[in-house]
Amino acid sequence: MSDRRLTFYYDFSSPWSYLGSTQVERVAQENGATVEWRPILLGALFKAIGTPIVPLHEQSQARQRYQGRDLHHWADFWGVPFRFASRFPTNSVTALRMVLAAGEKDLPRLSHAIYRAYWAEDQDITDREVLARLASDLGLDGAALVARTEDPEIKARLREYTDGAVARGVFGVPTFFIGDTMVFGQDRFDFVAAALRGEKI
Amino acid sequence: MSDRRLTFYYDFSSPWSYLGSTQVERVAQENGATVEWRPILLGALFKAIGTPIVPLHEQSQARQRYQGRDLHHWADFWGVPFRFASRFPTNSVTALRMVLAAGEKDLPRLSHAIYRAYWAEDQDITDREVLARLASDLGLDGAALVARTEDPEIKARLREYTDGAVARGVFGVPTFFIGDTMVFGQDRFDFVAAALRGEKI
Repeated sequence: MSDRRLTFYYDFSSPWSYLGSTQVERVAQENGATVEWRPILLGALFKAIGTPIVPLHEQSQARQRYQGRDLHHWADFWGVPFRFASRFPTNSVTALRMVLAAGEKDLPRLSHAIYRAYWAEDQDITDREVLARLASDLGLDGAALVARTEDPEIKARLREYTDGAVARGVFGVPTFFIGDTMVFGQDRFDFVAAALRGEKI
Repeated sequence: MSDRRLTFYYDFSSPWSYLGSTQVERVAQENGATVEWRPILLGALFKAIGTPIVPLHEQSQARQRYQGRDLHHWADFWGVPFRFASRFPTNSVTALRMVLAAGEKDLPRLSHAIYRAYWAEDQDITDREVLARLASDLGLDGAALVARTEDPEIKARLREYTDGAVARGVFGVPTFFIGDTMVFGQDRFDFVAAALRGEKI
């Protein structure tokens, strides 16, 4: 185990976070670090910091068109599947709570499964049956995990992580922390790697 | 001369464009291309496409703080000087017209000089004396070039380039075109290079 830690703030509702999630473990591993996964509720964070909008929707049409292509550029660049979700934006709160309920060991692979379902296979991740099946496909107790999304302790943990992100200055996802150094965006892995190597950025 | 062309849309008012301007010729050269410089008036483009804001100013404070650091991350990453301009936003129209007046051969080095003056040395690029001196320091006739910023033909050229950018779907700067492929941002040179190599992006 490395003592270098790469904290990864993400929400399933964000396509950029999905793309980041496909690379975060590789970048950590290449630089002797381990990933600390921090699911957060982006809508609550936006509300807390006074960002009134879903960014993809309130921009010029030219910018919106480009962003659609840009997402595919990244997916092709990294060789990962991508299909813009037909249900967007979505309510990700149950999915976020479920990965917290899964516990530290299973959270990463369950997060990958949910991301793939939403951002590559166009599944409905607000549907509890879909979520239960995704977990069961990994050998987990899907029904039990969905039930635990109502657990006050799990709800509180998601709020804690979200509030913690606000307090640290997070304004969107994906956001990475290496110590006190914050890096925003799936397009800044060069900076993440430099910071993990101990270079001043 | 290569027949591969990398078109570079920029405005002096944009710090991201400045950063991009420090790398664009290197990336072109490494991929056997030449740069086609396209100064445009970003304010007029924003107005044309219905972007009501100077992006850096209308965001959450957390995002603004990060963007300030991010600019320095890029400058350090590329080893170029950077100091956020104390006069921001600025009116860049005279500077833009002057580089057009300088003609194709001298436009690149005059553009670099103006970028450095504004984004590294905190000079006032709305000041005609400053602009004349920057040109004269390069051995050009600064006074004559400043005078030519009133030339209707030069004014029309800047409008033509700006309108052309709007028509091609540009929504900000720096923006690059490789044939019909548009790439936005100083943080997407990997895509620019791939497109110049003829890879599908």
